[in-house]
Amino acid sequence: VTGTAPAAPAAFLAGCRSAVGDRHVLVDPDLTASYAVDWTGRWRGTTPAVVRPASTAEVGEVVALARRHRVALVPQGGNTGLVGGGVPLAGEVVVSLGRLAALGDVDRVAGQVTAGAGVTLAALAAHAAAAGLAFGVDLGARDSATVGGMVATNAGGIHVVRHGAMRAQVVGVEAVLGTGAVVSRLAGLVKDNTGYDLAQLLCGSEGTLGIVTAARLRLVVPPPELAAALVGLRDVDAAVALAAAVRREVAGIAALELMDGPGLEVVARYLDAAPPVASGAGAYLLVEAGGADDPLPALAAAIEGAPGVVDTAVAGGRADRARLWRWREAHSEAGGALGVVHKLDVTLPGAALAGFCADVRSRVAAARPDAVVLLFGHVGDGNVHVNVVGPPADDEEFDDVVLGLVVERGGSISAEHGIGTAKRRWLARDRSPDEVAAMRAIKAALDPDGVLNPAVLVG
Amino acid sequence: VTGTAPAAPAAFLAGCRSAVGDRHVLVDPDLTASYAVDWTGRWRGTTPAVVRPASTAEVGEVVALARRHRVALVPQGGNTGLVGGGVPLAGEVVVSLGRLAALGDVDRVAGQVTAGAGVTLAALAAHAAAAGLAFGVDLGARDSATVGGMVATNAGGIHVVRHGAMRAQVVGVEAVLGTGAVVSRLAGLVKDNTGYDLAQLLCGSEGTLGIVTAARLRLVVPPPELAAALVGLRDVDAAVALAAAVRREVAGIAALELMDGPGLEVVARYLDAAPPVASGAGAYLLVEAGGADDPLPALAAAIEGAPGVVDTAVAGGRADRARLWRWREAHSEAGGALGVVHKLDVTLPGAALAGFCADVRSRVAAARPDAVVLLFGHVGDGNVHVNVVGPPADDEEFDDVVLGLVVERGGSISAEHGIGTAKRRWLARDRSPDEVAAMRAIKAALDPDGVLNPAVLVG
Repeated sequence: VTGTAPAAPAAFLAGCRSAVGDRHVLVDPDLTASYAVDWTGRWRGTTPAVVRPASTAEVGEVVALARRHRVALVPQGGNTGLVGGGVPLAGEVVVSLGRLAALGDVDRVAGQVTAGAGVTLAALAAHAAAAGLAFGVDLGARDSATVGGMVATNAGGIHVVRHGAMRAQVVGVEAVLGTGAVVSRLAGLVKDNTGYDLAQLLCGSEGTLGIVTAARLRLVVPPPELAAALVGLRDVDAAVALAAAVRREVAGIAALELMDGPGLEVVARYLDAAPPVASGAGAYLLVEAGGADDPLPALAAAIEGAPGVVDTAVAGGRADRARLWRWREAHSEAGGALGVVHKLDVTLPGAALAGFCADVRSRVAAARPDAVVLLFGHVGDGNVHVNVVGPPADDEEFDDVVLGLVVERGGSISAEHGIGTAKRRWLARDRSPDEVAAMRAIKAALDPDGVLNPAVLVG
Repeated sequence: VTGTAPAAPAAFLAGCRSAVGDRHVLVDPDLTASYAVDWTGRWRGTTPAVVRPASTAEVGEVVALARRHRVALVPQGGNTGLVGGGVPLAGEVVVSLGRLAALGDVDRVAGQVTAGAGVTLAALAAHAAAAGLAFGVDLGARDSATVGGMVATNAGGIHVVRHGAMRAQVVGVEAVLGTGAVVSRLAGLVKDNTGYDLAQLLCGSEGTLGIVTAARLRLVVPPPELAAALVGLRDVDAAVALAAAVRREVAGIAALELMDGPGLEVVARYLDAAPPVASGAGAYLLVEAGGADDPLPALAAAIEGAPGVVDTAVAGGRADRARLWRWREAHSEAGGALGVVHKLDVTLPGAALAGFCADVRSRVAAARPDAVVLLFGHVGDGNVHVNVVGPPADDEEFDDVVLGLVVERGGSISAEHGIGTAKRRWLARDRSPDEVAAMRAIKAALDPDGVLNPAVLVG
C-alpha cells in the first residue's frame, strides 16, 4: 500500500498539539516516513501524522480526540512486527509509544517490575539483571521490541517452554480502551478475581481494543548453571519423542528447538561448516536446561540410549553453548541468503507435529518442486517455522498450500506473529464464524467508534 | 433469599425436555432443592427447574431456548463456590454440568488432557497421576469442585506459587456464549495468536459470559522428591522476607504458607497440642519444595541464618510433612469451632503485605475488641485469608473495616473466591468506574439478552 496520506482534520491535530506538545506531533513526511514502513520493508503505508504522547493521560486525550474527529489510529511500539499490524497501511495516524519509557524499581520480594509501553526488551532485561532477576521472554528483536507491543501481540520467543509467552508474564496493565476508558491495575496483584481479566484480553489483541501504556511484569530467577545438547536423530518422530522425554525427566528445561535434516544441510552449506554432530541425521534437537547444579549429567543421561539417537554434542560453558545455538539461529539467515523467504509460523497439536513436518515437505515439493524448505521451531510449544525460498514474494497460492495443511491438521496459522493485516483473510479459515463473531462483538464493545487499528485482525 | 420459585415458561421446559431428555429436566422441589443452596448453607435460593445437558450441543440448545423465552440461567458445577455465584438466588433455572464428565486420553508428549466441565478435580488428578503426570491446581474441595466451575472462577489453591492459578493451566476451552455462539479450541495449541483469547476471557467470568463445557488443560511433571519446613520467625516482616529469599534460592518451591503468631495460638488451643517449633514466634512460614533430588539440604541452608528465624522443623517423608501441614490446614477448622467465620480472602501488593497484616489486626481490634482473628494464606501470591470470629454473620459493616483497608493499600478484595453475588457491592470500590464499564460492555456484547447469571458480578 502506497500513496498520499489522507489529511487529518486540523482540529484533531490542533488538539493533539495541545495534548502532547507541538514537537511531538510530526507531520513532515521526512520525519513520519520511518513510522510508516515496517522493518522488513514489506509493509509500507503513509500517515498524515505521528503523535508521541508521554503519559497514559496524554494517550487518553489522543484517543478522545480521535473519537471526536473520527480519526483512525495505529498504535506503534518498536515496529518489529511481522504481519503489518503496527504501520499505517490505510493512512491512519500513528500513535508512537516510545516516550512512555519509565522503568520502575524492581520489587525483589514479589519478583515484579512496572515498565512503560515504550521500554525496550533489552532495557527491561538489563534492569532485571541488575537486581539479580531475569525477564521470562526473550527474542531476537530485543533491542527494538517494546513492552507495549509485546503485550499487545503476546510475543513468544525461545523460552516459552520454560516461562510461557508474554501473557504469562503480565500481572496487570494500564491501558486506554477504544471507549476512552482507562484500565489501570499495576499494583502487582498475582491473584485478583474481581471481574473479567482485561489485561489478558488486551494480550494479543494487536492494538484493536486498547492502547497499552504500561505493564506490571513478572520476573524470574535465572538459573546459575546452564547446559545444552545438540542431538542428531533418525527422524522428526524420534526428535519429538525425545523432546517430550527430556521435558519429563530433566528439571529446568529452558529451550527445546527442532530442526529437520534437509534444513540443517542448507544451514551447513550457508555456514560452510560441518555440524558438531554426525551429519545426515533426519532431525536435530537442541536442548537447553538450567538449574542450581550443573544440569549436564541429567541431560546426558536422558539422551543416552533414547530411541533413534544417532549422535550427540553437549556444551556447558557459554561459548560452547553459543556454538551449538549457532546452528539453530542461522536458519533464518541461511534462508534469507537464498532469496525471498515465505515465513509461515504455525502451531500443531503435539500428536500431529511429526506427521505435519513430513507431509509439509511433500506438499511443498508437489506444489513448487524447486522450493528450498527450512523447517525448524520451538518443538516444546508445537511451534514450527516453515521458511520457504523459491516461490515469488506475492505467491499467496503457495502460502495456501502450507496453511491449508495446518488447518487440516487442527493447528493454528499464527503461533507467535499474530494476524495483523497479513493474515486477515486466513482468520476465517482458522477460526469458526462463531468465534470471529464473538471477537467482533468484543471489538464493537471496547472500540465502538472503530478508531483503534481498524484494518487489523477483525477490522 | 428464600421463597417460591417463579414458574419457567412451559414452552421453555418442553424445549429443554426435547433437548436433554425428560429425566434430565428436574422440576420436583425435592429433587431441585440441593441445587438451590450452596454447600455452606449461607446462600439459599429457589429454582423452577434444573436442566442437565450432556453435551456442548445440548448446552447450546438450552441457551438458545433461554434466549427465546427470556429465562435466566445459573450454570452450576460442583457447587463449591463461596460467593453465591452458582446458586439460583433470583429464581433462575439451574444448568447443571455434571453429566459433561468425559475425560480424554492423556497426551504425554504435549503434557495435556481434555476434560469435560463436569469432571471433578479429584478424578482429573487421578487420571493425570495414572499417566505419571499431575494437575497444577489443588484445593480442599477437590472431590466436588469441577473443571467447568474451576475455569469459570479461575480457582487458585495451594500450588499457585508453583504452577499459577487455573488460567495458567487452560490451553483452550469449549463453551457456549450468551449469544449462542460456540467457542471450541481443544486441539491443545500452546501458541495460538489468532485473535482475542476467548478462553482467558472466560476464565474468572463466573458464568456470566458463557457456559464452559470442556477444557484442554496443561499437566505438570510431579517432583519425585518433596520436603517441607515450618519456620517460626520474629514477625510477619521476617516471614515475608524469608519467603522471598527461599523463592530465589531454592528451586522447585511448591508452597509458601504464612500464619501469624496469634492465629497459630488459636490453632494450638483447638488442636490441644504444642506446635512443632518453639511457640511464641510472631509469625510462621510453611515452605514446601520439590525436585529430582532431595530439596531438604537446599531448603535448610536457605533458612539457616536468615534474619529473624527463631526455630525450624523440617520434614522429608509424607507423614512428617503432613504433620507440619496440619498446623496450616487446621486454621479453617479452628475458626469454625469458635463460631461464625467472616472469611475475607484478599491480595495485597508484595511490599504492602507485612504492613497490612499488622494493621488489619489493630483495625479489627479497634472496631470489634472481642473478635478472634486468624491470619494466614499463600504468601507467595500475596494472598491473605482474614478469618474473623465474633461479629454477627450479617455484620457487613465489619467486613467493610477489613476490605476498606485492603482497597486503601492497593489490594484486591477477592483473591481466589470471585465476586459472585456476595461481593457485588464491593466491586465498584475495588475497580474504577471505567473498568466496571468496560466489563459491562463485554457482558452486553457476549450475553446481549442477559440470560447467563444475570445477578452475578456485573449483573
